[in-house]
Amino acid sequence: MQVSIIKIGGNIIDDESRLSAFLDTFAAVPGKKVLVHGGGKLATKVAEGLGVQQQMVDGRRITDAETLKIVTMVYAGTINKNIVAGLQARGCDAIGLTGADGNAILSHKRTHASIDYGYVGDVDMVNSSLLTSLLLLDKTLVFAPITHDGKGQLLNTNADTIAQELARGLSASFEVSLVYSFEKSGVLLNAEDESSVIGRIHPAYYEELKASGAIFAGMIPKLDNAFAALRSGVARVIIGKAEELPNLLSGVSGTTITHA
Amino acid sequence: MQVSIIKIGGNIIDDESRLSAFLDTFAAVPGKKVLVHGGGKLATKVAEGLGVQQQMVDGRRITDAETLKIVTMVYAGTINKNIVAGLQARGCDAIGLTGADGNAILSHKRTHASIDYGYVGDVDMVNSSLLTSLLLLDKTLVFAPITHDGKGQLLNTNADTIAQELARGLSASFEVSLVYSFEKSGVLLNAEDESSVIGRIHPAYYEELKASGAIFAGMIPKLDNAFAALRSGVARVIIGKAEELPNLLSGVSGTTITHA
Repeated sequence: MQVSIIKIGGNIIDDESRLSAFLDTFAAVPGKKVLVHGGGKLATKVAEGLGVQQQMVDGRRITDAETLKIVTMVYAGTINKNIVAGLQARGCDAIGLTGADGNAILSHKRTHASIDYGYVGDVDMVNSSLLTSLLLLDKTLVFAPITHDGKGQLLNTNADTIAQELARGLSASFEVSLVYSFEKSGVLLNAEDESSVIGRIHPAYYEELKASGAIFAGMIPKLDNAFAALRSGVARVIIGKAEELPNLLSGVSGTTITHA
Repeated sequence: MQVSIIKIGGNIIDDESRLSAFLDTFAAVPGKKVLVHGGGKLATKVAEGLGVQQQMVDGRRITDAETLKIVTMVYAGTINKNIVAGLQARGCDAIGLTGADGNAILSHKRTHASIDYGYVGDVDMVNSSLLTSLLLLDKTLVFAPITHDGKGQLLNTNADTIAQELARGLSASFEVSLVYSFEKSGVLLNAEDESSVIGRIHPAYYEELKASGAIFAGMIPKLDNAFAALRSGVARVIIGKAEELPNLLSGVSGTTITHA
């Protein structure tokens, strides 16, 4: 059985009309599916409104106790529930989750030698049994980027990581397509040319692309992550524009990263 | 099969140590169970922080668009997810829901001849099939007092009403005990005497109590609702202190309202 796991970022969430158009497209995707949403600018806006200072270290937001409260409100409350209600209105039977719900995603508070990231979670375990049960009930799962440590602590968790961990966790029972929506049309052969999308990358071709220098620095960690997902059992990873979702899944648009 | 549906109010949610003690007790309740939580003062605090004016008409809060955003954040985000994580920490496999999730509770925006209550929902339908599936997966359900209209609109909905509608909806498949936590120890024969709790009220005794004037005005709508729940199939309604939950369920404390 197939399942599509689709991650959308803040750029779509922040733009009401883009989000609405995306939900139309997502609701129409056939078969079992999971949506993972990031945060967007609303958390920053609410934090400013409430006078909570955002601490940044090396360009990364530190999730102190007050910030955790805000991201929990905004991600698990506002954004998650509005997406779920929007999908229900489109005939898509969605159920919104954090990692705490049904113990879906267990994580631990990140420890780092020099930086205290605060209440940030690194994922330890995905509850595939719960997710499989819900998917078999024909529910579409909508994940907010919040997990828990099993000891009562909610933790702010990177949405890309959640998508990847869900994909890994479900790959034992499903043929998983993992879609990362992206600001570009896919992996480009020429970074300046949006029409130069590489349709398909397999491991040997990836080595070639790196050797020739066609793939630029910023893309390498993304693709390394995609190949790591493949090695852990995910069938394919697709990178492209959220707006082109049906074509991404059918391989007509975007870049599909596969075993061969 | 039995299910206990327990409603707690803002007085417990607002008090961290009372909430923690309640979650200990709730997690220990055997069998299938549903928790419905109200809002508490946090929404008012967040609204004040964000400079959103609370409109009151006849002592009732009007849920305008900005207030709806805040209650969605606070009820479905902060309160719901912290309760879920707290229950998970206590070995209780909880999953948090609003009425939008899995189309659990469908409602419509309240219409009133003279007052516009704003985004307030009156319940039309409880999705018993979803709730039964989740309960059969041994999940404990935790409901935030937010529903949806099926057209993409979230609606603020009274938690007492949600508890009662869930109880009605589940009574076709389960023997339902509906517990309303309350500031007093139960229905009192003498309003001034906390020890005068009436242990059991059936319809004929209720008529007697009303005729003798023992039950004071404020209690009558509550008890009328309880008897309405019984008529719609609920096995028993229990009123008492949340702290005494195990004794409420076993009939040792509080007031149990039953058919006979």
